[in-house]
Amino acid sequence: MKINVVKSVLDASDAIAAENRKQMDGAGLLCINLLSAPGSGKTTLLQATIPRLGGGASSAVLVGDLQTTRDAERLGPVAAQVTQINTGRGCHLSPEQVAEGLRGLDLSAIEYLFIENVGNMVCPAAFDLGEHHRAALLSVPEGDDKVAKYPTLFQGASVILLTKADLIGVLDFDIGRVEADLSKTNTGAPLIHLSSKTGEGMDAWLAWLREAKAAHGAG
Amino acid sequence: MKINVVKSVLDASDAIAAENRKQMDGAGLLCINLLSAPGSGKTTLLQATIPRLGGGASSAVLVGDLQTTRDAERLGPVAAQVTQINTGRGCHLSPEQVAEGLRGLDLSAIEYLFIENVGNMVCPAAFDLGEHHRAALLSVPEGDDKVAKYPTLFQGASVILLTKADLIGVLDFDIGRVEADLSKTNTGAPLIHLSSKTGEGMDAWLAWLREAKAAHGAG
Repeated sequence: MKINVVKSVLDASDAIAAENRKQMDGAGLLCINLLSAPGSGKTTLLQATIPRLGGGASSAVLVGDLQTTRDAERLGPVAAQVTQINTGRGCHLSPEQVAEGLRGLDLSAIEYLFIENVGNMVCPAAFDLGEHHRAALLSVPEGDDKVAKYPTLFQGASVILLTKADLIGVLDFDIGRVEADLSKTNTGAPLIHLSSKTGEGMDAWLAWLREAKAAHGAG
Repeated sequence: MKINVVKSVLDASDAIAAENRKQMDGAGLLCINLLSAPGSGKTTLLQATIPRLGGGASSAVLVGDLQTTRDAERLGPVAAQVTQINTGRGCHLSPEQVAEGLRGLDLSAIEYLFIENVGNMVCPAAFDLGEHHRAALLSVPEGDDKVAKYPTLFQGASVILLTKADLIGVLDFDIGRVEADLSKTNTGAPLIHLSSKTGEGMDAWLAWLREAKAAHGAG
């Protein structure tokens, strides 16, 4: 009985995610769902990424947080459209919330739609929102043991971003351990070292985004 | 109907938590539930705390993670008893898991029992495990906006530990913002700046633990 309840909820959730994806495909946009622990630098990354996508690319963000509109306020100056979704006590964005967010956006004007999920290494990984790709962020201060401890976050990612990479030498962080854990968890996704401080890795990340967009448009 | 299901689950959960608390009270031990984001330094803090509690105080740890026994392996050398609880895909420790953990410990030999919850700023805050106090950790690299963004984590805490405090000057972190947000969220809990690197704050944290233990024993 319990299993039926859970299953029906997930089925309904997946159906809404599929509907979101169909809508975004219809508009020809690429949607990236950003997942990570709190404070790994999702908002900072988007602040640096969106202005550099260039070529007149129009980007929008749906940003999830329990409370506050702080992230949306930070993203307002760089993104063409931003919607803050407050989840209250909710530990992840749901496809229903994303569907509602999509209704408030002019999808035809968007090329890249970023979903900044609630900062949480566990729950967001369990919910398809309709995105085309997931980007999993791991920040150096979180420690080199997180891939093994939170495998579900990294398993489903198309790209893995090691943020605050300028701190590798400063803090006690063994990149070999991360690579060894990823070799058991996700061998398909590139691991990009990023630093918003030094700019390291931004070109690789932007290239990854443009390739994903081109491949999506062609598909 | 949905509300009834949720309510009955929470009621059952609270009943098990009350049973855990009763059992721990019977044994005369003090139980602290540590909550924070992944990588804020819960295990490192316990590695530093337990040997310094001194006076022959016997400490045990129940440590929750989705996967791996890495934290238990780190705590084994310092704690008298350690049990790793793997939650699989579970985003928090449940009172049932703690009840099972308690059955595997010799409670009569314990003075301080630490529960190291799953690294997650959202879900663990919603579940009473039977602990006497909650300690909420916030690490400086996570950013100064986290109290406002994850208020439920900080609301229920008896003490708030600002970890990696040696990075305050290194990273862009406004302690005034944290204090202002806490003044709206939780005015009763002391905010202790901690650094495992410099040792800052360890005396205050140990004094807090000893006072809580003494007050509990007298209660």
